[in-house]
Amino acid sequence: MTRPTHGGNLDWAVSLINCPRSAIIDFSASINPLGPPNSAMEAIGKGLSELQHYPNPDYSQFCEVIAQKHQLTKEYILPSNGAAELLTWIAWEVNSGDGMLLPAPCFADYKRALRTFDLDFTSYPLDSLETKFKITDKGNWALLINNPHNPTGKLWTKETLIKHLADFALVIVDEAFMDFLPPNEQQSLIELVKDYDNLVILRSLTKFYSLPGLRIGYGVSHPERIRRWQKWRDPWSVNTLAALAGCAVLEDKNFEKLTWEWLPVAKHNLVQQLANIEQLEVFPSHANFLLVKSEMTAPQLQLKLLQEDCIFIRDCLSFPELGKQYFRVAIKKDQDNNKLANAIARIYHNSL
Amino acid sequence: MTRPTHGGNLDWAVSLINCPRSAIIDFSASINPLGPPNSAMEAIGKGLSELQHYPNPDYSQFCEVIAQKHQLTKEYILPSNGAAELLTWIAWEVNSGDGMLLPAPCFADYKRALRTFDLDFTSYPLDSLETKFKITDKGNWALLINNPHNPTGKLWTKETLIKHLADFALVIVDEAFMDFLPPNEQQSLIELVKDYDNLVILRSLTKFYSLPGLRIGYGVSHPERIRRWQKWRDPWSVNTLAALAGCAVLEDKNFEKLTWEWLPVAKHNLVQQLANIEQLEVFPSHANFLLVKSEMTAPQLQLKLLQEDCIFIRDCLSFPELGKQYFRVAIKKDQDNNKLANAIARIYHNSL
Repeated sequence: MTRPTHGGNLDWAVSLINCPRSAIIDFSASINPLGPPNSAMEAIGKGLSELQHYPNPDYSQFCEVIAQKHQLTKEYILPSNGAAELLTWIAWEVNSGDGMLLPAPCFADYKRALRTFDLDFTSYPLDSLETKFKITDKGNWALLINNPHNPTGKLWTKETLIKHLADFALVIVDEAFMDFLPPNEQQSLIELVKDYDNLVILRSLTKFYSLPGLRIGYGVSHPERIRRWQKWRDPWSVNTLAALAGCAVLEDKNFEKLTWEWLPVAKHNLVQQLANIEQLEVFPSHANFLLVKSEMTAPQLQLKLLQEDCIFIRDCLSFPELGKQYFRVAIKKDQDNNKLANAIARIYHNSL
Repeated sequence: MTRPTHGGNLDWAVSLINCPRSAIIDFSASINPLGPPNSAMEAIGKGLSELQHYPNPDYSQFCEVIAQKHQLTKEYILPSNGAAELLTWIAWEVNSGDGMLLPAPCFADYKRALRTFDLDFTSYPLDSLETKFKITDKGNWALLINNPHNPTGKLWTKETLIKHLADFALVIVDEAFMDFLPPNEQQSLIELVKDYDNLVILRSLTKFYSLPGLRIGYGVSHPERIRRWQKWRDPWSVNTLAALAGCAVLEDKNFEKLTWEWLPVAKHNLVQQLANIEQLEVFPSHANFLLVKSEMTAPQLQLKLLQEDCIFIRDCLSFPELGKQYFRVAIKKDQDNNKLANAIARIYHNSL
């Protein structure tokens, strides 16, 4: 198997070593280790008898539940087959403009969608968001912001981001990891969709609720844009079980609470342990993953961890601006986090 | 609720009457009444523990199973989020040509995909397929064929269709209902993908295996096109349970056999009964549904059947060439088919 272009890929990891898939501790995908919640599995179980019917293209109930979460009406909501489906329609929307500004580094799938329609894009350094863009010739450009940012874990405040809304034809904020922050720390721009018709928010349910195999995301934007995208895409893109599980988990306040209790403590401990390894530099993160700079190249460290410990970390080769010295790890439960830190410490120790 | 634009919609039917959703006998969607097969449900049950991992964008195992069914290699196969997802990419492929010829009448989603990218299309009468198209100015046009054809149930032979491959830049054959024919009656063009790089075959697993809620389809075409489409679309468009169920059902030869035994007998009986109602004209069908012309308008008959019998038939308003006098019914088990025929007979009798 060749190295996957989209980052984490368990099948590829398994192909490298003599270790069953189930034995691999997967730090490569930034998935909540507390999930999937029982509420999701119950909803899926009950939903099996619904599989013999087409989903209703309106996804009314799911839209209603999402709208309630954000104190909006459902006209602002478009459920999607993972957030990635919406990247396609965002790109097609950009087709009527001049191009898109992307953060550097960024999630590879942003570029996939733009390349599909042969669109112009260019990258901006992350600290550009702190000031104003020089956009004299960019009046019809779109700006994509990823908050918190993958893979750095950087978080910008609402106030920092709001000022860009006046300067771009379209502003997309990918908030795939925002749910991992407790409510008082979240910096979502969702409430602004009522005031800015050039704003699109992307959300994912698969990371926080550990259901990436089911494909559940949604977009939030002006009702006119939502209706347009719904006409563009195929009518039944969200599968029935995803819609049912989505409804169930959004009402599962207990799972939310457990996650918000687990993450700060687990993150603090893992950061401490990794920071104690002098060959690593750990970046402060507001998300459920850590970006780490490593003396040993990431592909080298990745292979050693796989071979010696059945641990799979994410190299950052799909983020070309970062290069080979960086890796990203999901924050998992303490026991797994300890294994990771101990294994890396041992590998560096043995390499001296 | 407003009348749905995409045909059958159970939620809409429920909103019209005082009848729980589960009590409705749904003839509106052309779904195999013998399914879903146990093999699918078992695969889904076992797959639940896989939901916390991303699907592998290669979908290698699923591709392998599909390729085996058609005696091809997996480079020719692209699994999809229902066949409808691929209509989007077919349309984007047509973007580099002049436009597409569509059968009249046809499935509304063909036009949805072409309209998304603002592409040119025009309709051809079904009997054009028997002769040659006058395409002196259509050298860079695409031709879409639907075999067996929805909603008429018409089937063209391979020989009839092959001759068009030389005349068009791209030929798409939507074979969503081909599986319902026993092998010796099937007229699939799939084996020709090895010889014609301008041929695309669309297949659906959701109709034959009664899993429309799960979204499973696939495309078969030249490996270069398959790779191009895979780069265009988002990497994880097929959910894990769909891929697992897809693998399981394609190996379920018993379910296939049962379906091929049930359908000809059930169809024969239903055709007989409906043909006995003098206000109806039943079209001969090679698929698992019947197109029927009715003296009473379809929306009228549809509402009466819903209100009086909790039976839901498909009006053909989404096929504008047909107009109000036509309806389509899935072929179900004898008991349900009898209820349908008796109810229509009674309604016509009472209206005299």
